[in-house]
Amino acid sequence: MKVLITGIDGYSGWPLALHLLGRGHEVVGVDNFVTRRRVREVGSWSATPIPTFPRRQAAVREILGKEIGFHRGDLSNYEFVHRVLDQERPDAIVHLAEQRSAPYSMIDVHHAVETQVVNLTGTLHLLYAMRECSPETHLVKMGTMGEYGTPNIDIAEGFFDVEFRGRKDRLPFPRSAGSWYHWSKVFDSGDVMFATRIWGVRATDVMQGVIYGIRTPEITDDRLLTRFDFDETWGTALNRFIAQSVVGLPITPYGRGEQRRGFIALEDSMQSLRIAVEHPPKTGEYRVFNQFDAAYSVNELAEVTHRVASELGLHPTIDHPPDPRVEAEQHYYHPLHDNLLALGYKRTRDLEEVIREIFHDLLRFRRRLEARRHVIQPTVQWRAADSRPELAARHPSAPSTPPAGPTEPASVRPTA
Amino acid sequence: MKVLITGIDGYSGWPLALHLLGRGHEVVGVDNFVTRRRVREVGSWSATPIPTFPRRQAAVREILGKEIGFHRGDLSNYEFVHRVLDQERPDAIVHLAEQRSAPYSMIDVHHAVETQVVNLTGTLHLLYAMRECSPETHLVKMGTMGEYGTPNIDIAEGFFDVEFRGRKDRLPFPRSAGSWYHWSKVFDSGDVMFATRIWGVRATDVMQGVIYGIRTPEITDDRLLTRFDFDETWGTALNRFIAQSVVGLPITPYGRGEQRRGFIALEDSMQSLRIAVEHPPKTGEYRVFNQFDAAYSVNELAEVTHRVASELGLHPTIDHPPDPRVEAEQHYYHPLHDNLLALGYKRTRDLEEVIREIFHDLLRFRRRLEARRHVIQPTVQWRAADSRPELAARHPSAPSTPPAGPTEPASVRPTA
Repeated sequence: MKVLITGIDGYSGWPLALHLLGRGHEVVGVDNFVTRRRVREVGSWSATPIPTFPRRQAAVREILGKEIGFHRGDLSNYEFVHRVLDQERPDAIVHLAEQRSAPYSMIDVHHAVETQVVNLTGTLHLLYAMRECSPETHLVKMGTMGEYGTPNIDIAEGFFDVEFRGRKDRLPFPRSAGSWYHWSKVFDSGDVMFATRIWGVRATDVMQGVIYGIRTPEITDDRLLTRFDFDETWGTALNRFIAQSVVGLPITPYGRGEQRRGFIALEDSMQSLRIAVEHPPKTGEYRVFNQFDAAYSVNELAEVTHRVASELGLHPTIDHPPDPRVEAEQHYYHPLHDNLLALGYKRTRDLEEVIREIFHDLLRFRRRLEARRHVIQPTVQWRAADSRPELAARHPSAPSTPPAGPTEPASVRPTA
Repeated sequence: MKVLITGIDGYSGWPLALHLLGRGHEVVGVDNFVTRRRVREVGSWSATPIPTFPRRQAAVREILGKEIGFHRGDLSNYEFVHRVLDQERPDAIVHLAEQRSAPYSMIDVHHAVETQVVNLTGTLHLLYAMRECSPETHLVKMGTMGEYGTPNIDIAEGFFDVEFRGRKDRLPFPRSAGSWYHWSKVFDSGDVMFATRIWGVRATDVMQGVIYGIRTPEITDDRLLTRFDFDETWGTALNRFIAQSVVGLPITPYGRGEQRRGFIALEDSMQSLRIAVEHPPKTGEYRVFNQFDAAYSVNELAEVTHRVASELGLHPTIDHPPDPRVEAEQHYYHPLHDNLLALGYKRTRDLEEVIREIFHDLLRFRRRLEARRHVIQPTVQWRAADSRPELAARHPSAPSTPPAGPTEPASVRPTA
């Protein structure tokens, strides 16, 4: 099949490209390299050194003997999106090209608006361009388990049968997200669901758990490594815990550390996306996958990290800073996830084994972590209006900014 | 109380200002006059001649002896929003400044993106500016009953008690909107709910039924008239039916005409909003009102219109063109609406009596309808990618456009 990956230069996009190539699929990518810029914006970089995209393409050619097509551009530009779809007419689009950091979206008003505007604009542009150029294409859209929040009932897989005042219906499971970023994913889900209804678009909406891991079997050479973020804004909790252990900082589960979330290994996430691509829904179907294997608490992640670190002769302490997020620190968490299993998905990786693998690589790149140790510990506050004044002040009026008038963030700081 | 009305120049905003002034409140308005421009964009105008805003202010001064404060500007400009809130620090904001037409949002990709981007950006800017300048302010946000769609169960008032797989929780009622516009209101609801949770903002989210009517008791002079739209894009079905009757066109309920929606008279909508303002929720409370009196089918609206028209010596026919929207033409519809009643709301107007009142005014302004009779009948199609190529091609790259790159809509028309 021919698969278009938007965000092919990113953490998931790149190993997905390698995985699909390995399965004999044709891969074309789109990226605007904004993640590289955004990570620089917060003063960080990838723990793994990652080549420029042309060098990535050359490495794939040399090591795997395969070609990756590529279009550099921004999904906020409809002319670009239309041209790419008209030219490529892929069997599937795996849409990963979204601002993906909750803390980034919480920095201030401009980052909040940018996150929601960029994410929903890109998705709407893809939907319209599919409708116009490539109506049979299957859209695999990356959402997040965080769309659901933490209700006190089981979380259904997209839809649930509900009885209310004596009548029954099957309705979308209520969403209650925990950051402007997570809400942007809720919004995308609404738009994609609506497009399937009015135009007969076929779509898989992936409620993705938190991904952990640094390697997939296709990464056989350092030139094929994917990025690995470890800073406060772009790294997940687990990534930060491992980075903290490597550079001798305390591990920092927020609050009581009993927040539970669904997780999946990078390799198994690639397996899931490939299964979605290879088993498209029918025309007009809106299909939801809750894509995770197991739920872990933040404390469990900290403990396994601590155990593996100790094996390796590292001796991190575990601190519990106040939770900067607004979230339940103790809660029920039981999401269902049957749809992928029904299509043959099998978990292949174990949390502790993957953590050991991450340590192995991060110890090799220890100097890159040491050079950025100041951006690992948390500072963004969910409750504060402006978490990071220095970032807010230099927020670029770049292509991806919202449609504001002549707004100068620096001049709108409250004087109080 | 001091009330800031965003969208004060609009259909609801203007009579709300008059109503609140009449109740002794202080009123300050914000508007960018985009509705006047957008109605011109589709080749139409208000059936009622409406004065410029400075003349409206002068009429209020002369007729009512009251002052209305005003800030001209766009909520997409955060600096403007921040300055207004910092200066005014109102007790309540009634936020009506959104793109409010479902057909407009369905014209093409640019109108879809513009609707969602402009609406969510304005709301996010208000929330952040409230948080920074005026955290005690009560936000009354205009949503729509259309957020819920037409489920086969009763529609709860925002939240419902749900049992699923043996456990119970109180969750947001699932949303399933029917246009990009209606989805933009769903998105706003998510953002407002989240702001109440993280910042303790107090908010009333109004799931407004379709408003009918042209007059409120405060409109004692033609200089105080509110706008009344009757074209395909900006007029409601009922407005179009009456306009059709006046100019001798057939009345056009879509499809089978059994689509049911909740309705409320303009005067009673003003009463509801005033009650919301005068009874603010507590800090951090997110309160939802389903704001309508009765559900009518499109056929019922057509029949009552036909009856009143006949009394007045008009003899419209009733046609049933194919439904351009994607909606159930026969469905269960039973939304709950107890919250306003509990605060003392009482319905004061009857549908037929209001329709008679509208006819009375429209017959006075018959020549204005005659001059725009070509924009009354429906052309926008929900299923087509581009309903109105001539509009798409001249979509202005104005302040309210999305953050696209150098997109020239004219050049991205599919060649097929």
